[in-house]
Amino acid sequence: MSAKPHFERVALMGLGLIGGSLGHAMKRAGLAGHVSGYARSVETRARALEIGFIDSAHETAAEAAKNADLVVICTPVGALGSVAAEIEPVLKKGAILTDVGSVKMAVVRDVGPHVPEGVHFIPGHPIAGTEESGPDAGFAELFDGRWCILTPVPGTEPQALEKLSAFWTACGSNVDVMEPRHHDLVLAIVSHLPHIIAYNIVGTASDLEAVTQSEVIKYSASGFRDFTRLAASDPTMWRDVCLNNKEPILEMLGRFSEDLTALQRAIRWGDGDALFDLFTRTRAIRRSIIDAGQDIAAPNFGRNPTHAKAADEDDVQ
Amino acid sequence: MSAKPHFERVALMGLGLIGGSLGHAMKRAGLAGHVSGYARSVETRARALEIGFIDSAHETAAEAAKNADLVVICTPVGALGSVAAEIEPVLKKGAILTDVGSVKMAVVRDVGPHVPEGVHFIPGHPIAGTEESGPDAGFAELFDGRWCILTPVPGTEPQALEKLSAFWTACGSNVDVMEPRHHDLVLAIVSHLPHIIAYNIVGTASDLEAVTQSEVIKYSASGFRDFTRLAASDPTMWRDVCLNNKEPILEMLGRFSEDLTALQRAIRWGDGDALFDLFTRTRAIRRSIIDAGQDIAAPNFGRNPTHAKAADEDDVQ
Ligand SMILES: NC(=O)c1ccc[n+]([C@@H]2O[C@H](COP(=O)([O-])OP(=O)(O)OC[C@H]3O[C@@H](n4cnc5c(N)ncnc54)[C@H](OP(=O)(O)O)[C@@H]3O)[C@@H](O)[C@H]2O)c1
Ligand SMILES: NC(=O)c1ccc[n+]([C@@H]2O[C@H](COP(=O)([O-])OP(=O)(O)OC[C@H]3O[C@@H](n4cnc5c(N)ncnc54)[C@H](OP(=O)(O)O)[C@@H]3O)[C@@H](O)[C@H]2O)c1
Repeated sequence: MSAKPHFERVALMGLGLIGGSLGHAMKRAGLAGHVSGYARSVETRARALEIGFIDSAHETAAEAAKNADLVVICTPVGALGSVAAEIEPVLKKGAILTDVGSVKMAVVRDVGPHVPEGVHFIPGHPIAGTEESGPDAGFAELFDGRWCILTPVPGTEPQALEKLSAFWTACGSNVDVMEPRHHDLVLAIVSHLPHIIAYNIVGTASDLEAVTQSEVIKYSASGFRDFTRLAASDPTMWRDVCLNNKEPILEMLGRFSEDLTALQRAIRWGDGDALFDLFTRTRAIRRSIIDAGQDIAAPNFGRNPTHAKAADEDDVQ
Repeated sequence: MSAKPHFERVALMGLGLIGGSLGHAMKRAGLAGHVSGYARSVETRARALEIGFIDSAHETAAEAAKNADLVVICTPVGALGSVAAEIEPVLKKGAILTDVGSVKMAVVRDVGPHVPEGVHFIPGHPIAGTEESGPDAGFAELFDGRWCILTPVPGTEPQALEKLSAFWTACGSNVDVMEPRHHDLVLAIVSHLPHIIAYNIVGTASDLEAVTQSEVIKYSASGFRDFTRLAASDPTMWRDVCLNNKEPILEMLGRFSEDLTALQRAIRWGDGDALFDLFTRTRAIRRSIIDAGQDIAAPNFGRNPTHAKAADEDDVQ
């Protein structure tokens, strides 16, 4: 692992869950001399300053980005391009410009044209989050043990990549490097499809006439409640993801629907062996996720009072 | 609420997650003079006795059910009928016969014909569970604050219904009464569809060529991992549910697919407003589920270390 990096001045563009968590993580590890912040609303800027995960708040993106050695754009994907355009004139030679957007080809497309000569543009995406948003949602531990994917464009200076890598490591992450196109395909299946499916099933359940909303809520512990967490995520963020990762998402949706049609057929024709087969095959993957430290072992995600303790013990193994 | 009930002798047919949890819950509340147990395998019977949630283990269902005042069948749905046939000759006059199966019309169909004159048959379904199974998976608190649905058939004696209701209340549940047919429709959307969709998406992710299994596992914290919990549930149980609640499940799958086609279209045509609309509409339901005490408020189901504490505080509100 590389030595702990230090930046004189870091600028956060967007002060919500991810921007906020980055601010907290930088403070925890002492990675920045000064953290300047920009957000759209005066309320968010004031709150971020009050919480203390930034040292100064600015009314424009350009003011916040001025003199920064590291600029991290943490807005929804649809706003990355306009923020980049706004800060283009003030970006310092030698600075690293990165982002945390959930898609990467669109970032290369939208931010790329606004990167001045001598600025190191390295798109990134921390694979960590919660269903909450806004400046109060962030916390220093969000990235601990999670992965951060960097998707450098051709010609990226190895030293800049290494420094940004060390930065994310110091924030608690493991770092992977891959092509933007591959990132978007991988994320389409591990993140975008799950969210879209969750939104869809919650929508379907809300629209029924024969089953009331109150029944759905009362009996949700039988499975449904798990989907409502993802379906409570920020609508702007997810609209932007869907609009900006269209092809991979449609590809994954196509495969999902095909598989679902086969499953539906097995149910219709009472093919117990096919059902048993699929339901057995899918078990192993959860064990691997737990072994990889990407989820806790406790049943019900540890939500059962007595099992919460067992969870922590399991986690330590 | 009715007075705490007491049964001289309770028989549990099936000693897995639900049978075991019932045993623990009865011991906790002192609801039975003696709990006899039956399970298919000698290992399960021995383990249940060792853990102590039953007082005696029996090699046949009939032996275990003999002289019982309350018999609860806790096997997978596909085995309920054969267990009922086996115990039919020994069931005591005046005894209550119930079950915990996840579908109810099929139970009326399969168990109904084996109920002797004078035995009170009241199908039931506790809306509580985890992704684990077997005799070690159970715990006394499983039913606390969850709902138990009873689906009495026409002609059920009110006193028997009241006694079984009081039993579940004493095990920690809230009790609802509804028609078996309505139960199966409600559960198709709140439980069966979520599990089927979870199994399906995990299957889709496992079959990709362009994204490796190891990538799916590493980056699963971005959404996918939530589905793997449901998809790690017992294959036999879920095969039996699919085989025995066909029509309602196919009806819900049809609606889900229709909605997904519309959503897919919105993504294909870049209809940001339609996407934003759906993604906004689905948020409220999670709040209602939390307010109803059916899930915890903490982000990420409380899996983030620092947020676990906040979760408990929220829960108390
Ligand atoms: N949430 C996750 O789980 C997650 C995980 C990994 C990556 N990401 C990515 O991280 C980024 C931020 O997500 P988040 O969850 O931190 O969102 P968030 O909590 O909603 O915060 C977004 C921030 O961006 C600002 N903003 C929004 N629209 C803007 C605009 N048009 N121009 C300038 N600023 C704008 C907001 O300002 P105001 O507060 O003033 O509105 C807010 O400070 C997104 O690109 C997302 O794809 C999210
Ligand atoms: N899991 C949930 O979340 C949940 C929630 C509500 C209701 N339910 C319902 O509760 C019932 C039991 O589920 P569970 O989770 O407790 O299952 P489980 O942990 O797998 O236990 C099933 C028990 O039934 C026995 N059994 C299995 N097949 C049998 C057969 N053909 N004949 C006789 N006994 C047999 C098993 O014996 P061996 O151990 O010897 O194999 C075991 O003791 C199912 O009807 C299910 O639909 C489940």
